[in-house]
Amino acid sequence: MNGLPPRAAIAYDGRGIRFIDQRLLPGRLKVIETADWRVVARGIRLLAIRGAPLIGVAAALAVAAEARRSRGRPNARTRIEAAIKGLGETRPTAVNLFGALERMRVRLEAEPDLAIGDALEQEARTIWEDDRRRCDRIAEAGQELIPAGARIMTICNTGFLATAGIGTALGVVYRAADAGRVKEVCVLETRPLLQGARLTAWELTQSGIKTTLIADGAVANLMRRGIDLAIIGADRVAANGDTANKIGSLPLALTCNRFGVPLYVAAPLTTFDPRAKDGSAIPVEERPAGEVLRFAGRRTAPEGVSVFNPAFDVVEADLISAFVTDVGVIRPAYDFSQ
Amino acid sequence: MNGLPPRAAIAYDGRGIRFIDQRLLPGRLKVIETADWRVVARGIRLLAIRGAPLIGVAAALAVAAEARRSRGRPNARTRIEAAIKGLGETRPTAVNLFGALERMRVRLEAEPDLAIGDALEQEARTIWEDDRRRCDRIAEAGQELIPAGARIMTICNTGFLATAGIGTALGVVYRAADAGRVKEVCVLETRPLLQGARLTAWELTQSGIKTTLIADGAVANLMRRGIDLAIIGADRVAANGDTANKIGSLPLALTCNRFGVPLYVAAPLTTFDPRAKDGSAIPVEERPAGEVLRFAGRRTAPEGVSVFNPAFDVVEADLISAFVTDVGVIRPAYDFSQ
Repeated sequence: MNGLPPRAAIAYDGRGIRFIDQRLLPGRLKVIETADWRVVARGIRLLAIRGAPLIGVAAALAVAAEARRSRGRPNARTRIEAAIKGLGETRPTAVNLFGALERMRVRLEAEPDLAIGDALEQEARTIWEDDRRRCDRIAEAGQELIPAGARIMTICNTGFLATAGIGTALGVVYRAADAGRVKEVCVLETRPLLQGARLTAWELTQSGIKTTLIADGAVANLMRRGIDLAIIGADRVAANGDTANKIGSLPLALTCNRFGVPLYVAAPLTTFDPRAKDGSAIPVEERPAGEVLRFAGRRTAPEGVSVFNPAFDVVEADLISAFVTDVGVIRPAYDFSQ
Repeated sequence: MNGLPPRAAIAYDGRGIRFIDQRLLPGRLKVIETADWRVVARGIRLLAIRGAPLIGVAAALAVAAEARRSRGRPNARTRIEAAIKGLGETRPTAVNLFGALERMRVRLEAEPDLAIGDALEQEARTIWEDDRRRCDRIAEAGQELIPAGARIMTICNTGFLATAGIGTALGVVYRAADAGRVKEVCVLETRPLLQGARLTAWELTQSGIKTTLIADGAVANLMRRGIDLAIIGADRVAANGDTANKIGSLPLALTCNRFGVPLYVAAPLTTFDPRAKDGSAIPVEERPAGEVLRFAGRRTAPEGVSVFNPAFDVVEADLISAFVTDVGVIRPAYDFSQ
């Protein structure tokens, strides 16, 4: 149905890419099919495809699709290079995107003309499969952090809609729920685009996990009443552990800190950027004012108002109790400079 | 126009009450006219009339209107008592409501039958005028806290739409802006009902004050970039200074604490409740799930999800730099038990 396997946000059949237009969830499950990297780039920019690991995978597949389309053309390399460049200009914060595109670029340069098509397809499939496996390892590593009967808080979406696998933070939750250890997951709705309400609540209820939705401002009120832990994803982790993640993550982290609730960040090593010394080196995307000024096409704020709409918070390392990675749980003091 | 003077959310002509249906702002300025306390009670419950000081004033006026309607009837006292009781059951947190109704009840009991109508109208007008004057005094008292060129953060609505005067926290802002000392006001949109986006941004832009709107989750990102102070209202202040205010106020307070930005609470003494020993004694209203599940009639979350929708946070006294009241600025240690 729709050409996608269950619990998958993306598919690739060697010719075209199919992806869920996540902007329409949960009301509508629309799958877009394309062999054109520009359609994928536009999907990433507009958040039809989102989640740091997934946009890396989607970009790699889009480059592979372009390599397939350009096969035998004299300007194939130029076309593929343009795809890599264009895809890299979609969103600035998630480092997975640049890591995946860099792998594709290196492979492109290493291969002779005749081998490019197959080589890039192989590389993209490797990145894809690699992300899927990293999700499994993260889910496994995180189990030691989830007590029985856990009430877990999370923000934005870090599940199968955000990765090529079962997710990062939500992957840990799924695995613990399978073992019967999750009592409830409390989800911040995550304004302005409501990825928590639209995507995470949709994923969790589909899996039969008890899900409680709150407005972002209710984070502290709810945590005071008893939350065992918060677990979130990441878009980029700096060498010192400072972590860029969805806007609202810093108030969540400060609330954890206030109430002594552990905050875990679940992310594959592909999200770590040793070249960023600390959070100040991570570029934070600012998104259009309309996301805040309107809702479902209806204007909610008066004319004449300005908007500041940063897509990400930087959560300082001192607020993070541990990282859950595909090489295990990492506790302070953090040093990801290697 | 609309029967309301400029910068007023309510009017009373001795027979009927006129109030703005604040649910429809900023898209539509609709004024409801009624002499029926039940319409006012419904307006309070549904947040057509909101803001702790305003709902106290509105309730008092609704009782006065009922006294006028019942004049000369044998069951007048019973009818007025029913109005006082019904209005008191609308919302549990703002103590101004109970204070105003208690004043009306005491007056009702003290007056002979023939004098009830005039006495209750006089009492309600006194409460109304009293709130207007307290707003002016708060605005004046707060000036010492506003530096020149101030960038000020606030949440929800505390202006003329929330009081019988120019507002509490927003009154301080208006007065400072009149003196040319306000560079910018940054407003949290205040989900789920967007009083910041719909009401405060509307008030401020009408007054020509530079206004920047943010999603609630962006509070920490913006504060890190340079905010001079935050000033908020209150729905009830306990004896030890713990303060109930709009949901989202505690994450805002924790953010102020993190970045060393002063947090001020502006409220008239009618909002202080010496009988509540601390925040745990303040009842916090929980509102319907639909406020979080839907927006503008459109469902934004999947079926099967639960909602936790508390209307208020309790901000502990240790996070509050000072109270701005109608008797001046009060700094820690707080003792409002008298």
